[in-house]
Amino acid sequence: MNELQSTNRNRRILGIDPGVNITGYGVIDQTGQQLELVEAGVLRGGKGDLSERCLRLYQGLVEVLESLHPDEMAIEQLYSHYQRPRTAIIMAHARGVLCLAAQQREIPMSDYAATQIKKVLTGNGRASKGQMQLAVCREFQLAEAPEPPDVADALATALCHAFIGRS
Amino acid sequence: MNELQSTNRNRRILGIDPGVNITGYGVIDQTGQQLELVEAGVLRGGKGDLSERCLRLYQGLVEVLESLHPDEMAIEQLYSHYQRPRTAIIMAHARGVLCLAAQQREIPMSDYAATQIKKVLTGNGRASKGQMQLAVCREFQLAEAPEPPDVADALATALCHAFIGRS
Repeated sequence: MNELQSTNRNRRILGIDPGVNITGYGVIDQTGQQLELVEAGVLRGGKGDLSERCLRLYQGLVEVLESLHPDEMAIEQLYSHYQRPRTAIIMAHARGVLCLAAQQREIPMSDYAATQIKKVLTGNGRASKGQMQLAVCREFQLAEAPEPPDVADALATALCHAFIGRS
Repeated sequence: MNELQSTNRNRRILGIDPGVNITGYGVIDQTGQQLELVEAGVLRGGKGDLSERCLRLYQGLVEVLESLHPDEMAIEQLYSHYQRPRTAIIMAHARGVLCLAAQQREIPMSDYAATQIKKVLTGNGRASKGQMQLAVCREFQLAEAPEPPDVADALATALCHAFIGRS
């Protein structure tokens, strides 16, 4: 481990917005105060039953991990979707296999509540989707918000992790 | 595929009772009307965070799959634990990685509601834990119910799948 890494200033962060249909991912590099967008996109669960879709997401994330080699992973917290148990239970299957892929490679994981991610990025724990997208665009000087919104959510999660490590 | 298999009469069934602390498993052979207990036990999530425990469960199930080669897997249905969302969400992470292990090996999976398993084994969808254990003991001529109860639950799930295929 070199000095930069030991002070948490040189790291590649993977942010994940888990979902069975679409999982957003965003990879950013943090060098000192500098943040750079490396790659962002979606993994698609596709058709079939829940297990088939989880396998596809798992394989997709393995590909991302093996091509981009993130040092750390940040993912939305477990209990954010409490209000809709059916959605939460399905999402948790996807979240389980995504975390498994990272754990198999011993990538440290951090999780953040949705409200915390909003608060860190905008100062407001109840920021709207539009405000969040604006914060992501501003950080990476993007002319337009990445589509689908899951990509911006994944980048927001990665940014939250970077900002918290930086402060 | 031989004739026995094509009529669903000769198959090895793995029943799973998923949990992050303890996942019960039970492997049975079905040959015509005959049912035989092959092996039953537990996989332990052990200590650590959810991802570490999911990895341990996944590795444990991979070992079972690779040593016992079940043809089919039966697992309790997704929405049985609706009433306790926190437990359900954690359990769904475990369920996700367990299903992944089977899906990676193209093992067909069936899921059953808890009430359905009870109904098939005892005739009563609201059977008590004791009645269920008795049904499992009777089927395999066991003097005592397997411990911990997760083992009996896994065997009950495998039995439910066997009975439904047989009828």
